[in-house]
Amino acid sequence: MPAALVLINTEIGSESDVMNALSKIDGVKEIYEVYGMYDIVVKVEAETHEALRELVINKIRRIPQVRGTTTMIVIEQRVISK
Amino acid sequence: MPAALVLINTEIGSESDVMNALSKIDGVKEIYEVYGMYDIVVKVEAETHEALRELVINKIRRIPQVRGTTTMIVIEQRVISK
Amino acid sequence: MPAALVLINTEIGSESDVMNALSKIDGVKEIYEVYGMYDIVVKVEAETHEALRELVINKIRRIPQVRGTTTMIVIEQRVISK
Amino acid sequence: MPAALVLINTEIGSESDVMNALSKIDGVKEIYEVYGMYDIVVKVEAETHEALRELVINKIRRIPQVRGTTTMIVIEQRVISK
Amino acid sequence: MPAALVLINTEIGSESDVMNALSKIDGVKEIYEVYGMYDIVVKVEAETHEALRELVINKIRRIPQVRGTTTMIVIEQRVISK
Amino acid sequence: MPAALVLINTEIGSESDVMNALSKIDGVKEIYEVYGMYDIVVKVEAETHEALRELVINKIRRIPQVRGTTTMIVIEQRVISK
Amino acid sequence: MPAALVLINTEIGSESDVMNALSKIDGVKEIYEVYGMYDIVVKVEAETHEALRELVINKIRRIPQVRGTTTMIVIEQRVISK
Amino acid sequence: MPAALVLINTEIGSESDVMNALSKIDGVKEIYEVYGMYDIVVKVEAETHEALRELVINKIRRIPQVRGTTTMIVIEQRVISK
Repeated sequence: MPAALVLINTEIGSESDVMNALSKIDGVKEIYEVYGMYDIVVKVEAETHEALRELVINKIRRIPQVRGTTTMIVIEQRVISK
Repeated sequence: MPAALVLINTEIGSESDVMNALSKIDGVKEIYEVYGMYDIVVKVEAETHEALRELVINKIRRIPQVRGTTTMIVIEQRVISK
Repeated sequence: MPAALVLINTEIGSESDVMNALSKIDGVKEIYEVYGMYDIVVKVEAETHEALRELVINKIRRIPQVRGTTTMIVIEQRVISK
Repeated sequence: MPAALVLINTEIGSESDVMNALSKIDGVKEIYEVYGMYDIVVKVEAETHEALRELVINKIRRIPQVRGTTTMIVIEQRVISK
Repeated sequence: MPAALVLINTEIGSESDVMNALSKIDGVKEIYEVYGMYDIVVKVEAETHEALRELVINKIRRIPQVRGTTTMIVIEQRVISK
Repeated sequence: MPAALVLINTEIGSESDVMNALSKIDGVKEIYEVYGMYDIVVKVEAETHEALRELVINKIRRIPQVRGTTTMIVIEQRVISK
Repeated sequence: MPAALVLINTEIGSESDVMNALSKIDGVKEIYEVYGMYDIVVKVEAETHEALRELVINKIRRIPQVRGTTTMIVIEQRVISK
Repeated sequence: MPAALVLINTEIGSESDVMNALSKIDGVKEIYEVYGMYDIVVKVEAETHEALRELVINKIRRIPQVRGTTTMIVIEQRVISK
């Protein structure tokens, strides 16, 4: 299933609002508020590459307090459960 | 529990070797091979901040084909299960 | 013929508007919407270096929703047709 | 058809060697030597996303004088012919 | 005690205002106006990781003329007095 | 004599206005409009390090259409005249 | 007194060796091991700008496991003691 | 006359060697050792764009201790003599 990690910079002071908005978007699977060059990282999944584009460009990037995004398409993922 | 996302650049051509090495390290929870400025992203967790440092500095960064890392400490995380 | 690749960041949500505006500018030869640190990449060509400057500075950068550009002047190009 | 733009840094002094090697790889469609933060930009296409990964990770990144790559997956492309 | 270095970009022309605002925030220990990619660097300390987050996200980032921050969590520090 | 190179990003479309404003500031010795990650590069000189700060922070950065600056302090310079 | 903050990347795995070497250099006042794009940050001071150059270029950058440095000259500093 | 500013990173410890090598290359007009993300900045000029490429790619980048370069082609320059 197509997946991506999206690195997000938010308007200063609206980190929590953006996290709340993200949590309501279908396809957003994990949300991380982080320290560093980016403010929030999300993992997203979609049925098709077209749906993934729709999710990133028309849903996540349209959250009003999102100032910029850098999307890294996932080639392969492994979840470790031990 | 202290957690971090670690953005990794590997020696060219050794992406799979690094992913295999990462999958054997305790505390590494998710591994993503990605397109973009970084080659691999991992999510790590540890019991304490000292253990997290040990994991990032003395385990992940010591994998021979790891060329550089940028670590983003997680402030808050939400996993969506719907 | 002088050519350049222009990496473009757009206002959030106006990717399609910018692509439409770009497609109407003389000298814009290829337009790519991409994932990553930039939103759109265009290949441009002009008869002279003066015309190339005009194209980049006074046409592309003046599209209202263009927020920033990074221009890479092409030294040599090869198109493979096989 | 899945496509990507790959920004490449080469070993100093081996720009031409890398361009020659790139021109022999199936799926490499356009090659640009550029001024700026990167040395070479290539446009690649493949039948599937798996083939695209193979092309970028196992062909382009394995050229000996390639020092680093940043891959931008193409969402949409338009070629202007006027 | 949890500590961090925060790299700050300010609105153009408001460097002094931001330094004054920073100097009144509890937990801000050292303030540097610098030349380079960032305008101001501060060292901050807090009793707990929660308090450190509060300090960075809800105090420093909410200063009106702060345009962006990059936070580096301190793993270990040594002050040399000789 | 203290000197610096200042890399400048301008508001889109106001490159020429900023160059004109720069050319009227005492201590600005060379002005370059460039392609790449920055829009304009200037070389500045001042009698003292205090005067250099005044020039960069209170003159150049206060030009209304200057959006951001990165200042590189010159350690040593050589002008070749052959 | 001229001062600078030096952002340091070390050879992978030699963070502690570099911190030890730094702690023996005159003029190095504070040393921070950090998470993020850089591995170590140091604050340095010298009597003159010439001595500061000597310290950064001929002492810190010559530590064998230092791979790269970015130096930010301090314009003004405030230490808060409350 | 085509001109460029070339931002150079050198091997650690060989800044002076690179500056000496640069000063012997025809077309290199100004050389600056700087603090910041780059180690040396040079201004170069050539009779033609082909000669400029030769100068940057085959002369400057082939200096043994040059580790990387970022070239910004000059669109317009003004030298202030007052």
